[in-house]
Amino acid sequence: MYIVIMAGGSGTRFWPLSRERRPKQFLDIIGCRPMLLQTYERIRSVVDDSCVYIVVGKIHEEETRNLFLDRSVNIVVEPQGKNTAPCIGLAALLIDFQGGGGDPIAILPADHYVAKEDIFRKDLEKALKIASSEDCIVTLGIIPTRPETGYGYIERFPGEVDNGVFKVKSFVEKPDFDLACEYLKSGNYFWNAGIFVAKPSVLLHEFAEFMPHFYDGLIELKQYIGEDSFEDKLADLYSRTENISFDYAIMEKTSTPVYVIASDCGWSDVGSWFSLYELRVGKEGDADKNLIDGEGAFFDSKRCFVLSRTGRWVSLLGLEDVLVVDTNDAVLVADLGKHQQVRVITEYLKKHGPKELL
Amino acid sequence: MYIVIMAGGSGTRFWPLSRERRPKQFLDIIGCRPMLLQTYERIRSVVDDSCVYIVVGKIHEEETRNLFLDRSVNIVVEPQGKNTAPCIGLAALLIDFQGGGGDPIAILPADHYVAKEDIFRKDLEKALKIASSEDCIVTLGIIPTRPETGYGYIERFPGEVDNGVFKVKSFVEKPDFDLACEYLKSGNYFWNAGIFVAKPSVLLHEFAEFMPHFYDGLIELKQYIGEDSFEDKLADLYSRTENISFDYAIMEKTSTPVYVIASDCGWSDVGSWFSLYELRVGKEGDADKNLIDGEGAFFDSKRCFVLSRTGRWVSLLGLEDVLVVDTNDAVLVADLGKHQQVRVITEYLKKHGPKELL
Repeated sequence: MYIVIMAGGSGTRFWPLSRERRPKQFLDIIGCRPMLLQTYERIRSVVDDSCVYIVVGKIHEEETRNLFLDRSVNIVVEPQGKNTAPCIGLAALLIDFQGGGGDPIAILPADHYVAKEDIFRKDLEKALKIASSEDCIVTLGIIPTRPETGYGYIERFPGEVDNGVFKVKSFVEKPDFDLACEYLKSGNYFWNAGIFVAKPSVLLHEFAEFMPHFYDGLIELKQYIGEDSFEDKLADLYSRTENISFDYAIMEKTSTPVYVIASDCGWSDVGSWFSLYELRVGKEGDADKNLIDGEGAFFDSKRCFVLSRTGRWVSLLGLEDVLVVDTNDAVLVADLGKHQQVRVITEYLKKHGPKELL
Repeated sequence: MYIVIMAGGSGTRFWPLSRERRPKQFLDIIGCRPMLLQTYERIRSVVDDSCVYIVVGKIHEEETRNLFLDRSVNIVVEPQGKNTAPCIGLAALLIDFQGGGGDPIAILPADHYVAKEDIFRKDLEKALKIASSEDCIVTLGIIPTRPETGYGYIERFPGEVDNGVFKVKSFVEKPDFDLACEYLKSGNYFWNAGIFVAKPSVLLHEFAEFMPHFYDGLIELKQYIGEDSFEDKLADLYSRTENISFDYAIMEKTSTPVYVIASDCGWSDVGSWFSLYELRVGKEGDADKNLIDGEGAFFDSKRCFVLSRTGRWVSLLGLEDVLVVDTNDAVLVADLGKHQQVRVITEYLKKHGPKELL
């Protein structure tokens, strides 16, 4: 069995803490260690290090190698970010080449949070078992706890295939609030955590069908694995490949059997400052739901979130629902409810600078 | 003629920019230079440097001497802050000793702002002229422009003594809002700017009447002026002296004639972050009344005020009426309307620390 950790993301939703050179998977915003490392540690008891593949972008290769200095995991470097489909195709090719074509791979995003790791591992092992015994794709479907509009959903067929295992009817895009309420009420929908389990042979078959040019490129690339020219050949293939998610390219179209395992593992994609605040405030917040990661104090304030790794003493006075992120070169003060707009600032910086803050 | 600048204040209303070692009069929060220096520059054309007395606290002596390194002003050091009455008494004694007993002194707070300096000087010279020709106390009364509850008021008698000069009926404490509206409507009230003009002989006479113990101490101290033991004798006197304002100790009780000069000099005591914001936003604010003194940008925000002298890039997102003060070791984020509560934080720091932020 194999684990592929997709660590190629370059989000800006945690600006100013996250930067182009240090995206969310390298931040210790929850759980005291970089999220990528936590993702690895979550599954290290499931497979041997030699069966772990971490796929990262070129600019994050060094930081990743430093994180895994004393661990014999495989670090795969993508020449550029092209979303999850090419990433999964490349990993499938390399594992297939290593002789693991018939053993299932679990593909995991590097920057998600899981509160109940035992349940997560149990569900993941269940998925690996199913994917081992049948040519299929298995996903983890997170049992929804609120009408979340920020996630895609997985719709299941009514009947249980096995205990907590269902056949998937469809993958659906992020709903509006009313639709999300219906999904929640129906009980037939799960949050799509972007976790897929399948054999490399199955995955490569999917690429052959739905991304044939990319598949041809992978097959051609195979002969260069281990050669000096591999990097150039890979860069060439990526430059010609569409930027597209695995969900969109494959999962929404496939005719291969797809199963979903109903999981109650306390998963979150930690998609914004507000989502991070919500994850942490229960345990770490004060009676007024203020949360500080750093030094400082709250006065006459409620539901505020301060993150400061600079040693500066941050005080809030007379405020509600305010986010303060204090870094060495930039300070963000925002309405915590307007967390989705943080990218407005990074877009501004791209146009007007200072660009070193990106 | 003499000018006394009272620079002994130790306010905390501009925390975290102001600190015990660096109170407001040493800050360049408006006008690009320390307020004490601006106060001096405002009157330097009125008198010779040798007739300027700057009264400061012990812990601010060095900083003051550095500010006035190449100017031959007199720097008087108070052993401790005891409010304005002892400060004025001490200055009167020293100027009387220097032989200026019969020449008027203008006593000015060091940390106020004046927009129209020409008018201010004209009114001050008018006051000096009156105080020179008669044994009286003359004050500048600022023509009120709003029902301000943060200032004390000066009530005048109806009839004009001279163009813009009135006899004072009473000094009144800070009113509540309704009373302040009445004051504004009546036209008989001025803001008390804490500016007094009188001969040292007149002032000493007042102290003899209303603070007789302190007056006796001053007279005893006179023989030690210029001696090594002066500092110890002064410290001894101050330790025995009440902490009291000149308004309260003398002006509210005196039977000496008191005049007020109606002044439209654009005065403000710059008493809070909000007051500073209001003074500056007209000229320096953007269309949404956001004001930044430093580097950064506003997004979807209104009436916000950022002051950062650290070089950090401060961005505000989706906020209204928020103050951000960014310093090297502390950051304050506050509701700009709750500016009066900043001292809650300094009181907290006194109890719980870190004390180095005070």
